[in-house]
Amino acid sequence: MSTAHERHHKRVTLRDEFWERYQSLVRNTVIPYQWEALNDHIPDADPSFAVRNFRIAAGLEQGEFGGMVFQDSDAAKWLEAVGYSLANHPDPKLEHMADEFIELIANAQHPNGYLNTYYTIKEPGNQWTNLYECHELYCAGHMIEAAVAYYQATGKRRLLEVACKLADHIDTVFGREEGQIRGYDGHQEIELALVKLYRVTNEERYLKLAQFFIDERGTDPNFFIEECRRREGYSHWAKKNLPIPTIDQLAYNQAHKPVREQDVATGHAVRAMYMYAAMADIANLTGEQALIDACHRLWDSATKKMMYITGGVGSTHQGEAFTFDYDLPNDTVYAETCASIGLIFFAHRMLTLEAKSEYADVLERALYNNVIGSMSQDGKRYFYVNPLEVWPNASAANPDRKHVKPTRQKWFGCACCPPNVARLLSSLNQYIYTVDEASDTIYTHLFIGSEGAFDLDAGRVELHQISRLPWHGDVRFELSTVPNREFTLAFRVPAWSNGQAVMKVNGELVKYDTVDGYAILCRRWTEGDVVEWKLWMEAQWISAHPEVRANGGKAALVRGPLVYCFEETDNGSALSTLSIDPTAQLRSRTDHEFSGLVVIETDGYADDRHSWQDHTLYRPLAELNAPGKKTLKAIPYYLWGNREPGEMAVWVRVRAT
Amino acid sequence: MSTAHERHHKRVTLRDEFWERYQSLVRNTVIPYQWEALNDHIPDADPSFAVRNFRIAAGLEQGEFGGMVFQDSDAAKWLEAVGYSLANHPDPKLEHMADEFIELIANAQHPNGYLNTYYTIKEPGNQWTNLYECHELYCAGHMIEAAVAYYQATGKRRLLEVACKLADHIDTVFGREEGQIRGYDGHQEIELALVKLYRVTNEERYLKLAQFFIDERGTDPNFFIEECRRREGYSHWAKKNLPIPTIDQLAYNQAHKPVREQDVATGHAVRAMYMYAAMADIANLTGEQALIDACHRLWDSATKKMMYITGGVGSTHQGEAFTFDYDLPNDTVYAETCASIGLIFFAHRMLTLEAKSEYADVLERALYNNVIGSMSQDGKRYFYVNPLEVWPNASAANPDRKHVKPTRQKWFGCACCPPNVARLLSSLNQYIYTVDEASDTIYTHLFIGSEGAFDLDAGRVELHQISRLPWHGDVRFELSTVPNREFTLAFRVPAWSNGQAVMKVNGELVKYDTVDGYAILCRRWTEGDVVEWKLWMEAQWISAHPEVRANGGKAALVRGPLVYCFEETDNGSALSTLSIDPTAQLRSRTDHEFSGLVVIETDGYADDRHSWQDHTLYRPLAELNAPGKKTLKAIPYYLWGNREPGEMAVWVRVRAT
Repeated sequence: MSTAHERHHKRVTLRDEFWERYQSLVRNTVIPYQWEALNDHIPDADPSFAVRNFRIAAGLEQGEFGGMVFQDSDAAKWLEAVGYSLANHPDPKLEHMADEFIELIANAQHPNGYLNTYYTIKEPGNQWTNLYECHELYCAGHMIEAAVAYYQATGKRRLLEVACKLADHIDTVFGREEGQIRGYDGHQEIELALVKLYRVTNEERYLKLAQFFIDERGTDPNFFIEECRRREGYSHWAKKNLPIPTIDQLAYNQAHKPVREQDVATGHAVRAMYMYAAMADIANLTGEQALIDACHRLWDSATKKMMYITGGVGSTHQGEAFTFDYDLPNDTVYAETCASIGLIFFAHRMLTLEAKSEYADVLERALYNNVIGSMSQDGKRYFYVNPLEVWPNASAANPDRKHVKPTRQKWFGCACCPPNVARLLSSLNQYIYTVDEASDTIYTHLFIGSEGAFDLDAGRVELHQISRLPWHGDVRFELSTVPNREFTLAFRVPAWSNGQAVMKVNGELVKYDTVDGYAILCRRWTEGDVVEWKLWMEAQWISAHPEVRANGGKAALVRGPLVYCFEETDNGSALSTLSIDPTAQLRSRTDHEFSGLVVIETDGYADDRHSWQDHTLYRPLAELNAPGKKTLKAIPYYLWGNREPGEMAVWVRVRAT
Repeated sequence: MSTAHERHHKRVTLRDEFWERYQSLVRNTVIPYQWEALNDHIPDADPSFAVRNFRIAAGLEQGEFGGMVFQDSDAAKWLEAVGYSLANHPDPKLEHMADEFIELIANAQHPNGYLNTYYTIKEPGNQWTNLYECHELYCAGHMIEAAVAYYQATGKRRLLEVACKLADHIDTVFGREEGQIRGYDGHQEIELALVKLYRVTNEERYLKLAQFFIDERGTDPNFFIEECRRREGYSHWAKKNLPIPTIDQLAYNQAHKPVREQDVATGHAVRAMYMYAAMADIANLTGEQALIDACHRLWDSATKKMMYITGGVGSTHQGEAFTFDYDLPNDTVYAETCASIGLIFFAHRMLTLEAKSEYADVLERALYNNVIGSMSQDGKRYFYVNPLEVWPNASAANPDRKHVKPTRQKWFGCACCPPNVARLLSSLNQYIYTVDEASDTIYTHLFIGSEGAFDLDAGRVELHQISRLPWHGDVRFELSTVPNREFTLAFRVPAWSNGQAVMKVNGELVKYDTVDGYAILCRRWTEGDVVEWKLWMEAQWISAHPEVRANGGKAALVRGPLVYCFEETDNGSALSTLSIDPTAQLRSRTDHEFSGLVVIETDGYADDRHSWQDHTLYRPLAELNAPGKKTLKAIPYYLWGNREPGEMAVWVRVRAT
């Protein structure tokens, strides 16, 4: 196995107005608020019980377990976000709080390494008997991710030791030896966590354990079916015996067939994405072609057949799941925030496996649209479901659309998405660059202002990226430290730049080769060299594949990485009466309603409404007046729902001209 | 109270190729098949238990109750259809079978008149304790309707006596006196049945009992809430105690407020329609203005804000219910067959209350589209859900659309819709004409070939209607018997005839006055007079109100009473890539695939697909080729799904030209 990941070091610090605002929101609003929530201190919210569960499990308090069976993961995701945040922005008070909490967690760990407050408090003796439903390995995975992040931020080993002890324990419980459980997790997560733990500890057992979970999954005889039989079908959620699941039903957990035989993204979208990310991780470390092939197939399936233009995946709320190719309804959509975050994890690992711009294009799409759109501008409210079309009356009064909320919800009502957003935004510095050892190449995937230091074979490189994204396409790289040898800088050519990206080095236009969607500059660099990367960033209308029934005759407005949308606030209701003239000028202009904001206006049409009377539902088309001209205004999708509630649409009708 | 209904007699016999085919299907296929089903003789179907339940209740067999709590109603609806069928087409063998079954039913009736096999077998002693859920009055209503139909067809009083004894018993149990239940039914049906029973018996108590149920419904304190409290919330369906329903939840049963205060069609659509029909019945008999006003409001709400172009009502499958104004999704639609049949009941009673063509327009729309579309051409398969857009892959693989079936289901899988279709189609002769006593007017509402005999104040009128509908707009009325006094013939001017209906009497053009949508001809008629009523019947594109989000930029093709649709079989997939040219000629031509069938072709467009590759989900609109010309072919909606399964769409995109 390669340990290439250890040979190169990179350190990246964000220096970006757009994204630092999000990081400071996380630091100043999200993390403190969630800490209060975890400690049951939010007056008008149901208690979380998460911290209290650890106190009870540690023997420091009497009481009953509270919350969901996976409640521990909320605490872990918080600690992980704290780790990233401390790395960006030291905060001794926060670190002290975290240290105390880590001590509590350590006290809740069993002498043998087991750690899970639900089973410790509520079902001692039943550990590892319901992997299908009860999230023990999922919670362990999040604790491991937290430990890695906290260790990397602070250098403190306390939680890392807890995590290693927990992983060591799991390594004794699971395996192919006599007396071990030859099984795997109901909600994938531990696999990618174990790879992270391997990367910081270099302990190969952790990588092999991750591989074991991936290799065993979906093999015959099916572990979940056997496990359910052993419980006589008893269900944690139903609190009674249920029919044993069929193999087809296990597609929900991606356990219906071995992962290397899976061709189609299926089942619960977050589970799928976490698993695919781990597969890509392992494929990267082992170089196994069968696993790489599976990653390619699942990537293509998820992103080329079943991804919303906003980077949302999983189009039905029933099972929060994938449906089938080209089924991307805008109104009954799910597109859960966590699934897009999982897609970012997957894309990031595919980029590490092989630098192809299509991965970064998708990563950027999910990040700038679905993910940041899920959070209100004040960081206090969140969408789980990220629709591409909203009609508030339908959300209120049509039960088929009640899961589609027209306004973001206060975050204490929900457990999974907000902390996931927090940990992603706080660790964004990890997603900007990768290094390819073999070619001494620094790849720039995202155009996010940052300072990067990279230790290549050629020597140390330090650079400063200055970016005006997402509002303007000018990116500038200043090299402050370079080695005395040739190395390569590779800059992603975003798909949205329409092949019109211009490179200057020290003010001179340079031609560049494009390899797999990256502009490649290999040379002896000099300190003080400046690379200007000017990306074409004009608004343009985008069509969806004709098999996407929901978008027939419609187009979406995109400018750079941002998808735009139309809100009732700007355009009146009903948005379905509007149509666009695809030949009309798209006028981008800066608006000061939100910082930096570029809005887009264009001359379109609004259908005749004056000739209609309320009591006429159907009339001959020939009686209608022609549509009237109307100026249409679009704002970035990620900003929707930050003003008064109303209709919203990403896809609008194209009027032929 | 008026008893006008008894003073005039009408007898109408169908003589119509289009509709007699349906009646013979019911007679030769549906009624025999259902009898086998009711007797558990269908080999590959779950048993119905319906007849066996009566045998057990009558003490002729030992055993357990089988089927749903409302299983008796299936038997009653069958008997009702048999009654209508015998009236059209005597059949001694069928009549003998029905007589034997009626004897069995009589034997299952308690000495006090009570009749319900579920409570007799399974919960003796618990009668009338769960009106909210358990359908006792609903089953009684269907038995009463059967009795009236059977009596009118055969003159035999046996079942009518059972029905009267049952109604008399209910009249002792329910009321405002001490010891009586001041309540009403969970699923409305008894009310309209009691009105029918009143009409044949002239027993005012039955009308007053129907009024009582209507008057009590939704009053404060709410009966269902009180009743649920008495059961401590025990639910027949959940088999455990549930929370007491809130007043808002009772909108499902239209019991959230008194009926005279209801403005908006709400809740379970079949329940709503049956109730509105009874309200119109009672309003007609009592002339009470408050009730008439409520009927008008609810009519307007249901048909002018929430009705599909096919005459479907109730747009969500969750609760099979109305949602809100202009919410008419084509894909997640419900539009249950029984709800449209209920709408026909309501429309028919509104027509009886006041002859306005808008009621008949809706009646005809529901009949020719949603209702007959629910049945396959061989009478053996049925839709419950009548979608306006079908994508078979989505029905199979998107759980949000799994209730939308792309193919009709064998009827034994379902209990309510097929027998409802059977009883409607067999009694269609009742819907063609009404008589207005005050003005000695015979109204023709539907253009269905028939022989009618009417006893007016002026004297007896006999006429023969010859109609080429739905394929051609020529209708002819031949008067064979007329009195020696003036009387009026009133012919509906259908909305679809676009104000271009031409009248000839004995070959001479005549001018006519139009009153409330009816062409009025008042004169001294002569035997042998011929009225020709030539209705404009050209195909035309129809738009939906701009508030209907689902149909923005779309149009539906209509010709006469028929809504048309586009099927994949004729037009390829994906139908969403098609668009129409609203100025192109619509070419109607007879096609011999189905008898009489007129198909419509037009020159439209198909979006560019050749320039798309499978792995590209989104591309700049500017890169696409212009749509290509394509001949589009539409067939009547009611015929969809009778060939190979595929996509179907009623609403198609309009391409501006």
